[in-house]
Amino acid sequence: MIVNVTRGGLVESTHEVAACVTDARGRVVHATGDVDRPVYLRSAAKPFIAAAIVASGAAARFAFDDRELAVIAASHNGEPYHVAAVRGILAKIGADPSDLRCGAHAPAYEPAAAALAARNEAPSALHNNCSGKHAGILAMCAHLGFDRATYLAPEHPAERLILELCARLAGLPAAALPLGVDGCGIPVYATSLRRAAQSFARFATLDEISDGDARALERVRAAMQAEPRYVAGTGRFDTALMEATRGRIVCKAGAEGVHGDALPRERLGLVLKVADGARRAAPPAALALLGSIAALEPGEALALGEHASPAVFNVAGLAVGRVAVAP
Amino acid sequence: MIVNVTRGGLVESTHEVAACVTDARGRVVHATGDVDRPVYLRSAAKPFIAAAIVASGAAARFAFDDRELAVIAASHNGEPYHVAAVRGILAKIGADPSDLRCGAHAPAYEPAAAALAARNEAPSALHNNCSGKHAGILAMCAHLGFDRATYLAPEHPAERLILELCARLAGLPAAALPLGVDGCGIPVYATSLRRAAQSFARFATLDEISDGDARALERVRAAMQAEPRYVAGTGRFDTALMEATRGRIVCKAGAEGVHGDALPRERLGLVLKVADGARRAAPPAALALLGSIAALEPGEALALGEHASPAVFNVAGLAVGRVAVAP
Repeated sequence: MIVNVTRGGLVESTHEVAACVTDARGRVVHATGDVDRPVYLRSAAKPFIAAAIVASGAAARFAFDDRELAVIAASHNGEPYHVAAVRGILAKIGADPSDLRCGAHAPAYEPAAAALAARNEAPSALHNNCSGKHAGILAMCAHLGFDRATYLAPEHPAERLILELCARLAGLPAAALPLGVDGCGIPVYATSLRRAAQSFARFATLDEISDGDARALERVRAAMQAEPRYVAGTGRFDTALMEATRGRIVCKAGAEGVHGDALPRERLGLVLKVADGARRAAPPAALALLGSIAALEPGEALALGEHASPAVFNVAGLAVGRVAVAP
Repeated sequence: MIVNVTRGGLVESTHEVAACVTDARGRVVHATGDVDRPVYLRSAAKPFIAAAIVASGAAARFAFDDRELAVIAASHNGEPYHVAAVRGILAKIGADPSDLRCGAHAPAYEPAAAALAARNEAPSALHNNCSGKHAGILAMCAHLGFDRATYLAPEHPAERLILELCARLAGLPAAALPLGVDGCGIPVYATSLRRAAQSFARFATLDEISDGDARALERVRAAMQAEPRYVAGTGRFDTALMEATRGRIVCKAGAEGVHGDALPRERLGLVLKVADGARRAAPPAALALLGSIAALEPGEALALGEHASPAVFNVAGLAVGRVAVAP
């Protein structure tokens, strides 16, 4: 699949997208591009990480609510309500923002970044889009008595528990998953788009997994469905897609152009990767693919139109081009 | 040509690059990818825009110095010395920052943006990376008595003079050049990479053009060679390449992954376009291409190593991957 960026009457830039749709057993329903090459899921794996935290018993022990679980599974905007949810998790587990090892970056949501700057306040680790996940891993450490200073290391027992759940979802041994380091410092694993789609199909159906994993994934899914704003935030595609479908699609973006959808109604999972890593191509591609498997109702597709073919604006705010799937 | 972005042991994302090297008559010396498809030059055309401003007589009338001419040809970082140079142009021509129609954005150079924010000062049009070019067009308006409120319009006489010089460099009639709107509001033209490379070869050699165009291009080239910091700024590839080669290569980046080089010693021009528009792939591709035509001395290539295969850093500042031309 090709996503074009036009300017004036010409295609200025093009993005290639590979994607796979499977059921929970890995049967391929739809595929485009190379679906067997390993792809780092990046933050698209956060719902699975959140499920490992639930499966550890930490979520029950600290009575995490939907917002807290959703922000653990989030790549959030750093809006005040996101920061408050992460602070709430840290307070419940007796940890401090300084325990977060994700590093600081300005809120992804521009008005939140501007508000911080206007107060002469430096962005902190709380504003990092991954701070919820890091707080959740700290909760696991607190609950299971793991060291909380070293949780970024691949050999840390919390990271092992997370990787093992991810491996079970992919249907592969954990040792078969290549590891890298994510933008926020934690290990990231790679698997094929085929296995990634199967993981999302298992997240969608709770089939082909243990009862314990199923219960944990179901809890995370319900939290994301109930609180989609906490998974991303204002203006973000993931939030818009879950809101427009009233949670019938549960989705998660990852860096470098990854996007995953759990489709409980269709009993399928969909994962795509923009080959060059451009985030701008993922929403148009996702909506076209969801449309092609009839996972979107007409009214929903209409409501998401601005994500299907977003305008390219110049600095003065004039629309000078468009991003859209090639005809 | 392929530029890979690796993370851990895997290729995470890939960029395709098309490029062309020609002489001033358009003879192709090297080509990779589709070099006949139209490409918007974007800011890579700024040296030609600056030359049109010189050719109009405005640069002589207002006694622009090298720094002022270099910043007119720049996509600058918005560092204090860039802003001062643009202010100087405006003062000389009796114009005001409010006459700039480029829109405001925060300085591209992060410490300059942070310094502004710390002073609770909003970014202005002066900080826009294109403000020098806009000030230069205003100088043309002041010198030739053109309306200065409407200079963004393609039919404005200043834009016509600019487009006609660009068309002469490409060896095509102006009417043959498709137009779009740039990020800063001015018209942008498209031409093939072959014609774009020819334009840079003419900029390099001053061959195949009129004496008037040659004198104007020579003046701009000398200014860029003398003041490469004013063309881009701290940490930027264009500045580094011109500094490392002591001006023997005169280069200019454009948005959406465009990069152009004038090579006076080799009597050639080189232009590349990253197909997906990713800026990160342009410097590694440019250095590989310049190396392949022996346009870089070994010591220069060494000095530019961090641009040839830049590390990918995570938020905490750890190198977790690399951008480099595929082996």
